[in-house]
Amino acid sequence: MPRQIRLNAFDMNCVVHQSPGLWTHPSCRADQYHTLGYWTDLARTLERGLFDAIFLADVLGIYDVYRGGPEAALERAIQVPVNDPMMLVPAMAAVTRDLGFGITGTLSYEHPYTFARRISTLDHLTEGRMGWNIVTGYLNSAAKGVGMARQVGHDTRYDIADDYMQVVYKLWEGSWEDGAVLRDRASGRFADPARIHRIAHDGPYFQLEAIHLCEPSPQRTPVLFQAGASTRGRQFAAEHAECVFINGPSMRVVAPLVADIRARAAAAGRDPAAITIFTMMTVITDSTAEAAREKYAAYRAYASEIGGLTLMSGWTGVDFSTLPPDEPIGFSRRDAQTSALEAFTTADPTRQWTPREIGAHAAIGGRSPVLVGSPTEIADALQAWVAETDVDGFNLAYVVTPGTFTDMIDLVIPELQRRGAYKTAYAPGTFREKLQGPGQARLPASHPAARFRIRS
Amino acid sequence: MPRQIRLNAFDMNCVVHQSPGLWTHPSCRADQYHTLGYWTDLARTLERGLFDAIFLADVLGIYDVYRGGPEAALERAIQVPVNDPMMLVPAMAAVTRDLGFGITGTLSYEHPYTFARRISTLDHLTEGRMGWNIVTGYLNSAAKGVGMARQVGHDTRYDIADDYMQVVYKLWEGSWEDGAVLRDRASGRFADPARIHRIAHDGPYFQLEAIHLCEPSPQRTPVLFQAGASTRGRQFAAEHAECVFINGPSMRVVAPLVADIRARAAAAGRDPAAITIFTMMTVITDSTAEAAREKYAAYRAYASEIGGLTLMSGWTGVDFSTLPPDEPIGFSRRDAQTSALEAFTTADPTRQWTPREIGAHAAIGGRSPVLVGSPTEIADALQAWVAETDVDGFNLAYVVTPGTFTDMIDLVIPELQRRGAYKTAYAPGTFREKLQGPGQARLPASHPAARFRIRS
Repeated sequence: MPRQIRLNAFDMNCVVHQSPGLWTHPSCRADQYHTLGYWTDLARTLERGLFDAIFLADVLGIYDVYRGGPEAALERAIQVPVNDPMMLVPAMAAVTRDLGFGITGTLSYEHPYTFARRISTLDHLTEGRMGWNIVTGYLNSAAKGVGMARQVGHDTRYDIADDYMQVVYKLWEGSWEDGAVLRDRASGRFADPARIHRIAHDGPYFQLEAIHLCEPSPQRTPVLFQAGASTRGRQFAAEHAECVFINGPSMRVVAPLVADIRARAAAAGRDPAAITIFTMMTVITDSTAEAAREKYAAYRAYASEIGGLTLMSGWTGVDFSTLPPDEPIGFSRRDAQTSALEAFTTADPTRQWTPREIGAHAAIGGRSPVLVGSPTEIADALQAWVAETDVDGFNLAYVVTPGTFTDMIDLVIPELQRRGAYKTAYAPGTFREKLQGPGQARLPASHPAARFRIRS
Repeated sequence: MPRQIRLNAFDMNCVVHQSPGLWTHPSCRADQYHTLGYWTDLARTLERGLFDAIFLADVLGIYDVYRGGPEAALERAIQVPVNDPMMLVPAMAAVTRDLGFGITGTLSYEHPYTFARRISTLDHLTEGRMGWNIVTGYLNSAAKGVGMARQVGHDTRYDIADDYMQVVYKLWEGSWEDGAVLRDRASGRFADPARIHRIAHDGPYFQLEAIHLCEPSPQRTPVLFQAGASTRGRQFAAEHAECVFINGPSMRVVAPLVADIRARAAAAGRDPAAITIFTMMTVITDSTAEAAREKYAAYRAYASEIGGLTLMSGWTGVDFSTLPPDEPIGFSRRDAQTSALEAFTTADPTRQWTPREIGAHAAIGGRSPVLVGSPTEIADALQAWVAETDVDGFNLAYVVTPGTFTDMIDLVIPELQRRGAYKTAYAPGTFREKLQGPGQARLPASHPAARFRIRS
């Protein structure tokens, strides 16, 4: 039996997520991101395709490295305007039954007490379909939005994140015991106060003394996603995350990342096979290979090179506008922040890239590999990625929306299903049960959150 | 032509809002507050009744004054558990077209930069039906939730609120000019960066330097609600609020409050008639007066006296459990915090109230007056309130849900419509246009937010 491939739709509450310029393609609805119908239609489409989840990225600042200002991003809608992703969940949940939600929430800018309530509310409203992508933030412009001079240091952000996780685990897992809620109309007792506990936390960054405001939701702690690429980030993911989102230009780059995450999880006492790892991928397909290549060429006509460089400048901290556009970049000078450049160097170490080429490449699918081919070729490639890298599936970026997703659903998923490599129905239960199996609605005992549970 | 009466449904994302014990009534769905269907059904019902809005209260702490702890509140679900109210809006918006949303948002616990984005997102998704009830918080337990020793002082909270409002006005009104968004597929220009401005704010409590993350929503600033009862609160309302929510036990108490708010608004250079004032009301009705009285008696059998005193203790800061239950309370000792007690003293100054009576009374409709009668009697009473007090309408608390609302819709609203005192269709446009008239989607030039607009 071939390995089952998992799929998330990778999206964002904005016009341009990973494909600058493509919103102008006649088939693309991305600029309607601010309407409810756009999202409820998409949710229904993804559920038709049995996608595991819609994974929504987020930023709280503007890509302002390119040309040293926000103008390039604003003009081309490069991840700005960007609306709040959480607000999309209730509307999408109302029109679906099984689709999961992986929502990026930046823990740098909201106290865990109020954040924990938001997430619990969503886990209730979705009947246990909520996932949280834990992000510490990476844009200086976001930090300035909340009155800081700049982003705090990278490793300090993870120290803050560790403290934050303690607080939310205590609130989600340790405040209301199982059985605390009675809902007993006859006696008028809604809950048993003896089984509800005040959480005390006096950490280096967060303090609180409070009862969680929400009764336990189906999953208590939402399914935890993380996307840290740095060593510190991967360590955090290995300790906390149930789903890890990675990115790399080739199987050769991705395979050791996957092995490293699974090894770190095992070292942390967790089941390495239970970590669901998604790698980012862009798929362009049509009925034949030739038609797919023609589609790719047609998309490229709408791609914005400057938009691609605006994204790359934000991701790397390097202002690509200061480099000669047609001269190959000397990568020897790159610093630790420029790991995004590896997307272009490590896939083919012999190839030299100019800024112009990087911009054009990043304008279709961002930093992700782009697969162009017939449904059979795509299915072959996706299965090869899973076999060679040990990833569990893919975060599918769109080039045009909903076209990239409907192409996948109408053409590739049936082929994967014929091969037995893709589910033909959703598993029952919560998001976590769909990933881990029946009866697994809550985090396993091996997860660090479990130690905050009340033993009664 | 009689004056048009406006109606909000007054609700909260919890089991017990204003009527402790009544969730156990066989007809009451309140304990299903954590499900999407509960809210989408209610939204459809309210839109059928042409309600102006659903007004959602909120707290971020637990009523823990009664008996000096949270147990009484937890056992009877007195405003705890309490889920996030904002998350209900997208789902309710998806199943309605005209219903407005007045959502309580506590500005003490979230930075205005991220809060402004949440509200803009909701104003987009609702196509301009968003209202914000500005609250500074009043529970010490909420302050402890975010790591503070106690709530900051009352007047300081309003100083913080003034600073907060400056920031959100700048973001909503002054960051993106009208016309900044081009959405031009032909040129690939989504926006004109020259018409998008970085906001700088260096106030006593908040600092930021940022572009608002959202393109202008239909209303930009949401319809502003405020419910401050203190002198400082009424002054804040007169300066900022478009809808004011008040509460009083009798027309004699409410009329001078309304006059004071309108006078303060006029003194602040605003049109006093354009302030929409709602007073809290509980209505119990049936086909005949006798049937209504029987219904009221039946409800009282489910009312929780202790639940009523738990609410009253939280509102007043007085632990009613320490007072002899059957001895009239000596009100001479009450301090400024105990204005909630006026609900029971000023309606009939000659009457003495015992704690037990106060608890029973507060268990049906909280502090609001309770009207019990036939549809004709209720319509008479509501019209008398409007005529005598100059309020524009009512925040209707429920005893049972949706029964209290459907009784109003099926029995009283048709009677008001026959009298020409209630709309027979929604006005077109945004929430603000429905309140103020066509073309009034944005705040008027006389509002303090208007001075942050860019003149281009």
